[in-house]
Amino acid sequence: MKISLHKVAMAAPNDVSELKALIDQGAVDPATIVAVIGKTEGNGGANDFTRGFATLSYELLLAPLLGLSAEEVGQRIAFVWSGGTEGVLSPHATVFTRSEAPPAATPRLALGIAVTRDLAPEEVGRMGMVHEVAAAVRRCLAETGITDPAAVHYVQVKGPLLTPARIADAKARGATLATEDPNGSKTYARGAMALGVALALNEVAGADLADATVARRLDLFSSVASTSAGGELTNCEVLLFGNSPTAGGDLRIGHATLADAIDADGVRAALASAGLSVAATATPEQAGRIAAIFAKAEASPTGRIRGRRNTMLSDADINYERHARAALGAVIASVTNDPASFVSGGTEHQCAPGMAPIAAIVRV
Amino acid sequence: MKISLHKVAMAAPNDVSELKALIDQGAVDPATIVAVIGKTEGNGGANDFTRGFATLSYELLLAPLLGLSAEEVGQRIAFVWSGGTEGVLSPHATVFTRSEAPPAATPRLALGIAVTRDLAPEEVGRMGMVHEVAAAVRRCLAETGITDPAAVHYVQVKGPLLTPARIADAKARGATLATEDPNGSKTYARGAMALGVALALNEVAGADLADATVARRLDLFSSVASTSAGGELTNCEVLLFGNSPTAGGDLRIGHATLADAIDADGVRAALASAGLSVAATATPEQAGRIAAIFAKAEASPTGRIRGRRNTMLSDADINYERHARAALGAVIASVTNDPASFVSGGTEHQCAPGMAPIAAIVRV
Amino acid sequence: MKISLHKVAMAAPNDVSELKALIDQGAVDPATIVAVIGKTEGNGGANDFTRGFATLSYELLLAPLLGLSAEEVGQRIAFVWSGGTEGVLSPHATVFTRSEAPPAATPRLALGIAVTRDLAPEEVGRMGMVHEVAAAVRRCLAETGITDPAAVHYVQVKGPLLTPARIADAKARGATLATEDPNGSKTYARGAMALGVALALNEVAGADLADATVARRLDLFSSVASTSAGGELTNCEVLLFGNSPTAGGDLRIGHATLADAIDADGVRAALASAGLSVAATATPEQAGRIAAIFAKAEASPTGRIRGRRNTMLSDADINYERHARAALGAVIASVTNDPASFVSGGTEHQCAPGMAPIAAIVRV
Amino acid sequence: MKISLHKVAMAAPNDVSELKALIDQGAVDPATIVAVIGKTEGNGGANDFTRGFATLSYELLLAPLLGLSAEEVGQRIAFVWSGGTEGVLSPHATVFTRSEAPPAATPRLALGIAVTRDLAPEEVGRMGMVHEVAAAVRRCLAETGITDPAAVHYVQVKGPLLTPARIADAKARGATLATEDPNGSKTYARGAMALGVALALNEVAGADLADATVARRLDLFSSVASTSAGGELTNCEVLLFGNSPTAGGDLRIGHATLADAIDADGVRAALASAGLSVAATATPEQAGRIAAIFAKAEASPTGRIRGRRNTMLSDADINYERHARAALGAVIASVTNDPASFVSGGTEHQCAPGMAPIAAIVRV
Repeated sequence: MKISLHKVAMAAPNDVSELKALIDQGAVDPATIVAVIGKTEGNGGANDFTRGFATLSYELLLAPLLGLSAEEVGQRIAFVWSGGTEGVLSPHATVFTRSEAPPAATPRLALGIAVTRDLAPEEVGRMGMVHEVAAAVRRCLAETGITDPAAVHYVQVKGPLLTPARIADAKARGATLATEDPNGSKTYARGAMALGVALALNEVAGADLADATVARRLDLFSSVASTSAGGELTNCEVLLFGNSPTAGGDLRIGHATLADAIDADGVRAALASAGLSVAATATPEQAGRIAAIFAKAEASPTGRIRGRRNTMLSDADINYERHARAALGAVIASVTNDPASFVSGGTEHQCAPGMAPIAAIVRV
Repeated sequence: MKISLHKVAMAAPNDVSELKALIDQGAVDPATIVAVIGKTEGNGGANDFTRGFATLSYELLLAPLLGLSAEEVGQRIAFVWSGGTEGVLSPHATVFTRSEAPPAATPRLALGIAVTRDLAPEEVGRMGMVHEVAAAVRRCLAETGITDPAAVHYVQVKGPLLTPARIADAKARGATLATEDPNGSKTYARGAMALGVALALNEVAGADLADATVARRLDLFSSVASTSAGGELTNCEVLLFGNSPTAGGDLRIGHATLADAIDADGVRAALASAGLSVAATATPEQAGRIAAIFAKAEASPTGRIRGRRNTMLSDADINYERHARAALGAVIASVTNDPASFVSGGTEHQCAPGMAPIAAIVRV
Repeated sequence: MKISLHKVAMAAPNDVSELKALIDQGAVDPATIVAVIGKTEGNGGANDFTRGFATLSYELLLAPLLGLSAEEVGQRIAFVWSGGTEGVLSPHATVFTRSEAPPAATPRLALGIAVTRDLAPEEVGRMGMVHEVAAAVRRCLAETGITDPAAVHYVQVKGPLLTPARIADAKARGATLATEDPNGSKTYARGAMALGVALALNEVAGADLADATVARRLDLFSSVASTSAGGELTNCEVLLFGNSPTAGGDLRIGHATLADAIDADGVRAALASAGLSVAATATPEQAGRIAAIFAKAEASPTGRIRGRRNTMLSDADINYERHARAALGAVIASVTNDPASFVSGGTEHQCAPGMAPIAAIVRV
Repeated sequence: MKISLHKVAMAAPNDVSELKALIDQGAVDPATIVAVIGKTEGNGGANDFTRGFATLSYELLLAPLLGLSAEEVGQRIAFVWSGGTEGVLSPHATVFTRSEAPPAATPRLALGIAVTRDLAPEEVGRMGMVHEVAAAVRRCLAETGITDPAAVHYVQVKGPLLTPARIADAKARGATLATEDPNGSKTYARGAMALGVALALNEVAGADLADATVARRLDLFSSVASTSAGGELTNCEVLLFGNSPTAGGDLRIGHATLADAIDADGVRAALASAGLSVAATATPEQAGRIAAIFAKAEASPTGRIRGRRNTMLSDADINYERHARAALGAVIASVTNDPASFVSGGTEHQCAPGMAPIAAIVRV
């Protein structure tokens, strides 16, 4: 297996011209595309439709090229968008292709993708979701030929939350739920998916997990999970990134934990983990080797960073996730020289409270 | 002369408790306070009243201690606030005191303060303002004992813009104005004040300046000016910071130019200019030596940073100045370890377009 | 007793010039001022400091006139502010004075004011708060000479919520709380205060009330309560408005229930209840008789109004309370001809879910 | 000619299910659809992509039904979206169909559609645009069989503004422009299109118009024009609605002028102009007869409405157009009983300054 990636800029959520040009030039074979992960310029909230617009636009580009309907493209390729390009963050998509290749001398980036079955509302944010995600992570491990959990550096999971309709359905059947608050269910869903990753990677013990653990026992977490929940989904989709002895290509991934939203040392640690040692700011040669950064940003639960109060949590005009993404996105760019990184919000059971995962893919 | 400073955190715009505690403990003699520069947690726009609330609150604290009315405190002490604590920026005030002290062995931080006469509306944003500010800067130089303009590292100026009432007044007298747009007059006023600084410090030649230069010939600028305009003012107030051979104390100031809002190297250059060499992130010992940072943040006029598009200028929900402050404030904190820095917006004639000044005060 | 009122416009949260002019002209005797209720131009959220700025500004105006400190003015006069002047809503204050006068021929506007003792954290949002508010309402009834609850048309209550500090204090003492979520405690506090009003005015039966009722049994409510909760308070302040047979003056109050945020007929019903029949839009003569409107605005809990979906609850850029106030404020102004009305948010136990109270004071 | 319309609710910008259901039921023949005018739930600003998403979604629905590509659907059917559903405004689309029918006894709603040639950048916001729009309006009159300009009640025009690329193109050719500010060009473009309507309908005299008139001589205006400008267009599209003696069907249109954003009497006047007399709020029977409302909302240029200051123009958090739409949308709904009306912003040369057009289509 060989994973390649192309970062394409987007002038708008429906701007697919850079990928089209790469395909036209023969630089990307559309048949090899397996995943698209990117940032769109919406507000990142419930009324952010830029994510759906971007997905539809890429589906329409690829459908005739693949001889599929737009809907079938969506089933074939994993699309993961985070809305909100605050501060200097730049709208873009990272397009992943997977093709056959002989193993390289040292482990290289591998990408496994698996989906769970549809989940019942009463499983969302609970052990049902945890176990299904864990099983999907294990299928990804098998697919990538990774046997050592320590070789896994980033696991992106997206899955369902509880919509009003699904809550009503469950109640009609007499089923109990993690919560009856649709908005609040995001927390439980993201948390359960992260615990599923943690379970499969032996970061937590199964004996410590229960329905009541989710979104409460925050000392249990995965250091490599990045999860998101959306009302349009009924199952979970897992994208596992790690370095595999059976993979070829020239990419390698590493990760670190961000202590807070201004942890430039953490950014450098992620790069170093992937094999690139940056002293302060990446030199142009180093910047050219940084292929992609994926990170989570979160407001400090204490309202303080390095002892200083910030106003993220009390700001009624700008959501705290937007403040956090603006801060971290700028700090990452100040190290990598590239404002087009993937920074998203919501870190339940993804590193310890206040901390967040960051992964870096670099060219060997 | 000896300048001391205390950075006090603020839990709200009217929270003066930390300064009160310093006074109660004897750490600050209220009679020596000459200036307060800080960030408040408003939106930084026309309807940001947190600046006025903070000024009134400090005036009310100090009035009985100084035996003055609140209004008289405002005339005695220079208050400079920038609204908007986006990202990790932390509400705070830096309180400057000035007292007698013998000169140190090497130049130390000196602070000169001067005000201009009231300006007529037709002078705002034009050569009248330029010359009055330049004269005030020269008075500050004399006051601080600085003869070499290269020893000046930061000049904060605040002054009047054109309000609807002042525009009407001028028109009734048949006077022409830099602009008849109240909001647009900010640009002219900030620009003219910056050119006044540039003129006094020989950064531009007087022969190159004219009314038509302001806000247009952006190749003419000061690298150390930081200006702001407000409707409540009728004259300009200049605070000049430099290192003087006649000053004592243990503070030294330096400055640099930020290439853009993610220029961490520029932050380090400002610290180095003040005598503190930081490799990547300040060590705890180094962080303890960083007394204050003052910087300007601005959206890139091209809509791009390091070749990547950002969405600051097209975002209808969040003003571009808020995006820019969030980014730069986080980058500064990632270097200094302190989210309580002074980052404000609007850079007309303050460094080349897209660039911005940054000053650092460090303990020797 | 005779209640008079003056509505003064405010050009900024600290603009007290119109009240000052009324006092200077002799139109208002500052010694008779008992309450100030108004709208300020902040965002209405947790970081809206315009309310505190306005209170301080009026206190500083009145302190020398009353021979009191600013703080004492705040204890003597009830200040109630709602932040957020969305749509056409206009920043203003309605200043109430109370003086001696013989009863008029028919009942006239009376205003009773009472405060509760300080409440323990464990009482907030629970029966302790309900009973204390009910007792204060009864004291107001006695003060105003109103014996028939049907003569009460508007009861404004403000009181404490649970701050992080108060939550910590309670937990340290082993006390349980209505909720441990500071933000969420607003709902419980507003609800308990409204139920206190309902209890005192026989709108609900004491036997139906319990801790578990608050914020849950929404079929229990007051039709005349308007409550707000703030972190700066430790006790509750009640302002009761009704028509009393012992009152003089030329003002009369009435109220109605708004079916939703666009219920112009409800606005007209409130005016009619106060004795002013408006056909569609108030004529200039009628508009001159409308002294003040107080109303609550709320997003429909179903996300729908008159069968049409609105986007208040899913909007991540603008809080739903701001949408609701913008809508209702405009509808009220379209009937009364005056954009300066008092419209605030949060209707727990204040009318049935989705509905809201509105009161009108008119000149006889 | 017979014009029919269907108002379809939208649960999201890409929700076309209601129109699909109408087509599936046979209630709408897709071949007869000529125009779609609607509101989407974006922010209405430069980064509002909900309009494009909605257009694409309807194009994808109709393309297979019409045997056309999505792009060809966009050329065949006029799509006009206004972003921003503030207050109670409800996302929806009004779908217009045009079919053959004998004339009714009295004039009925007719709809003419015409496009101009592509405009050069130097024509945008100037007399070139004025004359081209005027010619297109005259073609619409001919198409609808309307000879009396007084029978025209609503003319929706959308056309190009000046993008950075088009400004650069013009400057490279040495051509001068109405303005070199892309954002500011909206004002000129909307104004020139409105003057084009005014010219064709004899609301202004051609001798009074010149390049310098646009966006300056605001005493020249159309009372029935509603114009919008977008960067994606290069020509203008005109939709003219009036009552024609040659039209059949059961719809009739009328219009009025709104004095301000809370002019409920103006709403009633528009309904009356279309033949429906509403006393205060529409009865259910009357509400059933109101087919559609189209209106413009604008902040008062004085910052005051009915003598009261509002904060629309100084609010740095919420754009003034959003405040204005929230207010007017609620006032319209308070009269018509329907929150799904079309309210958009920007009124240059569309009624006198501060005023705005409103049109009503009612069933006979």
